[in-house]
Amino acid sequence: MDLALELDLRRGRRIGLEDALRQAIVAGRLPAGTRLPSSRVLAEELGLGRATVVAAFEQLAIEGYLVAAPGSGTRVASIPALGGHADLAAPERRVLHTDLLPGEPDLGSFPRAQWASTIRRVLTTSGDDLFSYDDPRGRRELRVALAAYVSRARGVHAHPDRIVVVPGYSSAIPLLADAFCALGITRVAVEDPCLPPHARALAAAGQELVPIPVDDGGLRVQDLGDEGAVLCTPTHQYPIGVALAPDRRGALVTWARETGGWVVEDDYDGEFRFDRHPVGALQGLDPSRVIYAGTASKSLAPGLGLAWLVLPPALVEPVVQARRRRRAAVSTIEQAALADFIDTGRLDRHVRRMRSAYRRRRDALLSILVPRYEVIGIAAGLHVTVVTERERELVERATSRSIALLGIGDHVVAEQTRSGLVVGYSRAPAHAFAAALERLAAVVEDA
Amino acid sequence: MDLALELDLRRGRRIGLEDALRQAIVAGRLPAGTRLPSSRVLAEELGLGRATVVAAFEQLAIEGYLVAAPGSGTRVASIPALGGHADLAAPERRVLHTDLLPGEPDLGSFPRAQWASTIRRVLTTSGDDLFSYDDPRGRRELRVALAAYVSRARGVHAHPDRIVVVPGYSSAIPLLADAFCALGITRVAVEDPCLPPHARALAAAGQELVPIPVDDGGLRVQDLGDEGAVLCTPTHQYPIGVALAPDRRGALVTWARETGGWVVEDDYDGEFRFDRHPVGALQGLDPSRVIYAGTASKSLAPGLGLAWLVLPPALVEPVVQARRRRRAAVSTIEQAALADFIDTGRLDRHVRRMRSAYRRRRDALLSILVPRYEVIGIAAGLHVTVVTERERELVERATSRSIALLGIGDHVVAEQTRSGLVVGYSRAPAHAFAAALERLAAVVEDA
Repeated sequence: MDLALELDLRRGRRIGLEDALRQAIVAGRLPAGTRLPSSRVLAEELGLGRATVVAAFEQLAIEGYLVAAPGSGTRVASIPALGGHADLAAPERRVLHTDLLPGEPDLGSFPRAQWASTIRRVLTTSGDDLFSYDDPRGRRELRVALAAYVSRARGVHAHPDRIVVVPGYSSAIPLLADAFCALGITRVAVEDPCLPPHARALAAAGQELVPIPVDDGGLRVQDLGDEGAVLCTPTHQYPIGVALAPDRRGALVTWARETGGWVVEDDYDGEFRFDRHPVGALQGLDPSRVIYAGTASKSLAPGLGLAWLVLPPALVEPVVQARRRRRAAVSTIEQAALADFIDTGRLDRHVRRMRSAYRRRRDALLSILVPRYEVIGIAAGLHVTVVTERERELVERATSRSIALLGIGDHVVAEQTRSGLVVGYSRAPAHAFAAALERLAAVVEDA
Repeated sequence: MDLALELDLRRGRRIGLEDALRQAIVAGRLPAGTRLPSSRVLAEELGLGRATVVAAFEQLAIEGYLVAAPGSGTRVASIPALGGHADLAAPERRVLHTDLLPGEPDLGSFPRAQWASTIRRVLTTSGDDLFSYDDPRGRRELRVALAAYVSRARGVHAHPDRIVVVPGYSSAIPLLADAFCALGITRVAVEDPCLPPHARALAAAGQELVPIPVDDGGLRVQDLGDEGAVLCTPTHQYPIGVALAPDRRGALVTWARETGGWVVEDDYDGEFRFDRHPVGALQGLDPSRVIYAGTASKSLAPGLGLAWLVLPPALVEPVVQARRRRRAAVSTIEQAALADFIDTGRLDRHVRRMRSAYRRRRDALLSILVPRYEVIGIAAGLHVTVVTERERELVERATSRSIALLGIGDHVVAEQTRSGLVVGYSRAPAHAFAAALERLAAVVEDA
């Protein structure tokens, strides 16, 4: 294969090669699954040292652009197939007819009429400052509404002055990376597996990633060391689906206190728990060490680009400064609308309605899967994880039948320790969901 | 004075001091106008070398946090008084009763009812993908609408595939800085004077600033050297108000072609020209070297956070990649709404209506100023520049009477070569404008 890479070596050979590969992958010139030449061959072709090529491959693997498959060389990661995340507007994902990807709610259920009337009310009743530049923390009426909401719905200790509104959780990661950097932190732990774009965003903002394995009890807190912070999903580990074991919740907070580390709690689907005793946010255990991150991307729509951080006092100032510096702006009108949507109880009602709908979808999905497979992570969220050693085989079989789903392997940072399928049940349109399940059944039953 | 700076020296002494000062300024602990101790005194107090303190002061002056006033030491810049810009949500500006700051349109004229009905129509008629994650270039229907709009209204050569939607022009600066960096560019020229937050955003993204003076012909193109790019306001220099002289327009494009440099044309108020022969965008002269930047912040409202770049082919990919990496998200619903607002002719009608209103305001303002002062930059935009040697005296006199306006000195990057007042006439509410003029008259007539 001819890679046709144009190397710009002015900032060094390794960086030049990394940039060229990143650009080729992002631009789609190197589609997912493409096998790269071996480091030896590529080094020879490009006139670079082999160590340079190996180092570039390793960096890109950590950032999630490449995956090293034992026995089959280095391949381009299936970034685009990871639908439903900010940096993945992949034409590819529209080609597949049956959408069982995780990451997005049912877009067909967006409360269009209610949102339109909320916007109209906000436009009718707000003062002219609604149209001005945003407060660097986000609009106050939204922060007030959110403080009440996260406290009521998720057990978060919140005050409007410690909330910062951000354009999505993934947009918040660079802000947190900057804030950590301002506090002298250069290494941040991430769960392995996790959502690759989040790890990439952290690395792109200059933080060194330290992957920490996940087991049945969630993040292996005992493996944390002197990292300055950790990004995690304690309520519903993504993608495995387990909740952080109770003793580890305590241990995580103890780690933070004893080492001076920070815990970022990504509560991406906290609203959607189907068991009777919902797990409250970890943040409640120690609001002075845990950063709580919530989002409207699952409860309403990713397109809004609305998320929020509840910060320990010491982090408010560094995060606000990073938000200014990075010019992370959020529409003021939509902020006011979300505040109104919360205050009038519409968000709670919408979440309740969707929770019932998703629970029905989940039950239908489980009726197909559980007879044959161990299925985990079913108590919450918009996806389940199917434990199977034949992950690759099943993903490929699904893909060949135009069914889009992911494997745990698509989420690996450093090392794949368990294998299985990650099946999202929220994205398929309501009218197509039954058919999607039938098609999935044909794949898993044959197997 | 006791600065009470907490220095974190882990990343070095100079950086530690810079960060501490920046944070104190941004947090308001060092208000605008505060005189800092001399570098000698501060070095002694903090136990740092004097060269370290001088270097930190210089860097913060370039970034716009500090100003060195000859004979009166180093002072904290009046950043917050520069109202109407993304990083300036200053409580301070609300204290002043008469608002003659530049930078924001008349927020009271926002077309509330039309925008609400546009949102409703978009929510009623769009497909479900409206609620999904954004395309990394921005939504296609908006890019199509913008290509037609900038071509028609501003003579820009545009194609939807070369447009990238961004959350405001200042949010685009880090993206451009990253794209330049990916092309090996590390030094970018800026106009001196210019809007300080823009220079700061460029510096914060890692580019070295090269200030280029502005004279009666606008940017002194002849002073450009081997910088890899230049940010400029050729149609209506901010804050001086002059248009780039015709021979310099040609020379600027020649500079770009001969050196391989890039020109960023910030067309921040291009819609508001009051003369009969509007100056078309510079970009038309060479769309392969000029990046055109337009915004809805002046024509509609800053709170929307909607702006757009029309890029040379070679820059599309690096800017898109930077937008992904930095997670610069723009509300998909509001993008669709702006597309509809343009397609239905509502934006043009709103701009025409506002142009008449602003022209009337400008004429009223000039009737007060021209008898006594030379006033420049009156052919376009939402501010005028009053040439006067007594800039500081008049700004202080205005401030003491609760009138907020700026001096050219508030916009200096390296060296102040001319002095005068920058008087914005769009921000005062319509009902308060006549009174604002009376109060201004009392200030300038006394003088």
